Amino acid sequence: MNSLTLVPLHGIPEVGTGDVLASFIADAADEQGTPLQHGDCVVVTQKIVSKAEGRVVQIDPEDREARRRLVESESVRVLRRRGDSLIVETKHGFVCAAAGVDISNIAEGWAALLPVDGDKSAKRIRDGLRAARAVEVGVVISDTFGRAWRRGQTDVAIGVSGIAAMLDLRGSTDTQGRELVVTEIAVADEIAGAAELVMGKSAGVPVAVVRGLDPAWFHESSVRELIRAPADDMFR
Amino acid sequence: MNSLTLVPLHGIPEVGTGDVLASFIADAADEQGTPLQHGDCVVVTQKIVSKAEGRVVQIDPEDREARRRLVESESVRVLRRRGDSLIVETKHGFVCAAAGVDISNIAEGWAALLPVDGDKSAKRIRDGLRAARAVEVGVVISDTFGRAWRRGQTDVAIGVSGIAAMLDLRGSTDTQGRELVVTEIAVADEIAGAAELVMGKSAGVPVAVVRGLDPAWFHESSVRELIRAPADDMFR
Repeated sequence: MNSLTLVPLHGIPEVGTGDVLASFIADAADEQGTPLQHGDCVVVTQKIVSKAEGRVVQIDPEDREARRRLVESESVRVLRRRGDSLIVETKHGFVCAAAGVDISNIAEGWAALLPVDGDKSAKRIRDGLRAARAVEVGVVISDTFGRAWRRGQTDVAIGVSGIAAMLDLRGSTDTQGRELVVTEIAVADEIAGAAELVMGKSAGVPVAVVRGLDPAWFHESSVRELIRAPADDMFR
Repeated sequence: MNSLTLVPLHGIPEVGTGDVLASFIADAADEQGTPLQHGDCVVVTQKIVSKAEGRVVQIDPEDREARRRLVESESVRVLRRRGDSLIVETKHGFVCAAAGVDISNIAEGWAALLPVDGDKSAKRIRDGLRAARAVEVGVVISDTFGRAWRRGQTDVAIGVSGIAAMLDLRGSTDTQGRELVVTEIAVADEIAGAAELVMGKSAGVPVAVVRGLDPAWFHESSVRELIRAPADDMFR
């Protein structure tokens, strides 16, 4: 294993519907003197993806009822309800608060929804970067989710392209030559969480470049590999 | 935000009861030409901490009943049971499979248990590094846990010293000057997961150095900040 470097990309402009994120990302990387390289993994926060894809809606921030309806329209199932707080299963199969509907870092009176298909969002950016700079990179779309059992939120993957969502170690052996008990590592979630460390919520850095990941992890994949089917989930 | 670098430490020898991990870590860092620096965060996997602290027990790998008793003796509560697989709440308050009892990367016929107090384990290593090399670092003890809702495992923190477990953003504002909805980031879990990316399960690299974290995060803290009290947990 080699060293890993995480570089926040500053200078991404305010994003609006129809903007080409790949151009913004490639330009920002060039301008700060860290041009993208073959084998980089680019982590892009959900917020700017949603804005570029027009997944934003107007909402009165004081109208709780409208917000509840919006959250439910993005959900297939409400798992828990406590006051105004809803934990739901989204159409994608993610379990998160408020179906990922978010009013931070967006203009007053607007809310951002999750991208319809995070893998496609990631592929669009990856294809765009290949076209713009002739680099083959992996792309992870990240969002900030809570979890059961542990306090605090972490960034996780909601879309991937060209990078493993899951590392399958079944059949691998430990240093003693015995088969590993831990068999599936959610590397895309670890990559998303690592990128959050250089982004910061207040600073508003929406993209980070991860350089030095194992070349064997760069292959076709889907964030669906990370979704536990309700029937297999002992905790919902 | 600046760049972050994660460096795996190779050359940590096989650890036994009573070994001083701080010496092993400081020596390994020096020998590979990346001596520890003020402001580094050292991530140490649970396995070598448990070995150094003698938190290992003999167990017949074929004796399922003995294994079940061992897991239950490390637990305060069994949350779910499916076949031989137990999801429990440990004495520390962690929710994980098999109470963290693990038979990988340890001699045949032995199992490693979680450290009794991960924060104390982290502090011992931190104090040892200060004594050995006059560096002030943060220390995170990590282990590999599953989670609800999402497939795959990720590394999370089971002990911290000198580094924030949680980043409290209450009262912080977004780029628009509005109060953030996301208010608590579990940075120690994100640091643990990031370190896993350079460790690898098969490679058996038990320590990584994270360089470049926000200096404001280096303060006293406890992994207990990451534990959701059962009464506040909607999913157990």
